[in-house]
Amino acid sequence: MHVGILGGTGPAGRGVAVRLAESGAKVTLGSREAERAIGIAEELRARWPDLALDIAGADNAGAASADVVIVATPWDSAIATIKPLRELLAGKVVVSMANALIKDGREMLALIPPRGSVAASVQAALPDSFVAAAFHHLPAREMENLESGLESDVLVCSDHPEASVVAESLVDLMRGLRPLNAGSLSQASAIEAFTAVCITLNIRYKAHSTLRMLGI
Amino acid sequence: MHVGILGGTGPAGRGVAVRLAESGAKVTLGSREAERAIGIAEELRARWPDLALDIAGADNAGAASADVVIVATPWDSAIATIKPLRELLAGKVVVSMANALIKDGREMLALIPPRGSVAASVQAALPDSFVAAAFHHLPAREMENLESGLESDVLVCSDHPEASVVAESLVDLMRGLRPLNAGSLSQASAIEAFTAVCITLNIRYKAHSTLRMLGI
Repeated sequence: MHVGILGGTGPAGRGVAVRLAESGAKVTLGSREAERAIGIAEELRARWPDLALDIAGADNAGAASADVVIVATPWDSAIATIKPLRELLAGKVVVSMANALIKDGREMLALIPPRGSVAASVQAALPDSFVAAAFHHLPAREMENLESGLESDVLVCSDHPEASVVAESLVDLMRGLRPLNAGSLSQASAIEAFTAVCITLNIRYKAHSTLRMLGI
Repeated sequence: MHVGILGGTGPAGRGVAVRLAESGAKVTLGSREAERAIGIAEELRARWPDLALDIAGADNAGAASADVVIVATPWDSAIATIKPLRELLAGKVVVSMANALIKDGREMLALIPPRGSVAASVQAALPDSFVAAAFHHLPAREMENLESGLESDVLVCSDHPEASVVAESLVDLMRGLRPLNAGSLSQASAIEAFTAVCITLNIRYKAHSTLRMLGI
């Protein structure tokens, strides 16, 4: 499986990249500047030399050529990043992991995008792709550190059952993570917004919390 | 401590009532019809005769006379219930537990009230009270069954630190529940909406899930 990560050089993308690559997936980090992605890929491989991680760098079009593509840009550049890639992404599963958040003192607050969620905006901008939302509540640094002992549930939602299956299978590959299917893309609004609560808890309790749904 | 529960005869209110009373609190269930609240209180006491639960029934004004008052009505009757009680509730901590939800096939979807959350609407309708939000993600039947082994985190938020302290202390009294302070009342929007995700997961997985923030 070849996974591309748009905006993959940021903390969110790097964390997903190393955990996917650890499982044996081929990963291409995308960036506006290919040189930057190539450098970050080299750093990630060098951090875990024994694992021989299959992580390469490219521009975002290069990452969009993968079988499955994750959108890991900051939320306010997600649409500008994907619009020129619409044809490359047609017919593919695209996983949106961005959250529209804004810092307010010692809290993170959720913003509501015009379509209710970043994921719904991504689906609207990519009508020929199958968009799922996933990977919202994960602490980036613990994701990137393969020795952190991270354990978390990952909520997945989509209007396309096949996209949910693919996104859940990606989560399933990644050590410490359990996928849970949370329904249609309408749920992305609440899932994304809840990230603000998770981060605010982390600020207040000086923690790197993760989500677990007990009883499932 | 005397706790009143407006709309306390529904599943949400009954669950909070028995767990508070189990801890030794005096609880008054309120209802539009006092007779109904008196009957439900009698049923709850009879279900656990050995515990001698101190649960009584009254009209909503009777419940609003308690030291701390919980709003457990359906979300769309919360404001109509509290508006006539504004003076009785002045200077008190009021805990909002309602979620604005709507069923859509096999999913529950979150609605966004004009002020972002039910709790913010409650605070706006009760400017002389100190409103906190809490008790949103709990499965009602497991709350009401004291033998269910329920364990859950309960997210609390408020614009008034003293209201958060009181709401957290109520949660702390209740067996199986751990309070977490999630910040200002702005967080109630995401906290309430996330209930839709919890219930949708319960429908999909035939579960009675509860929330746990690992790492805190």
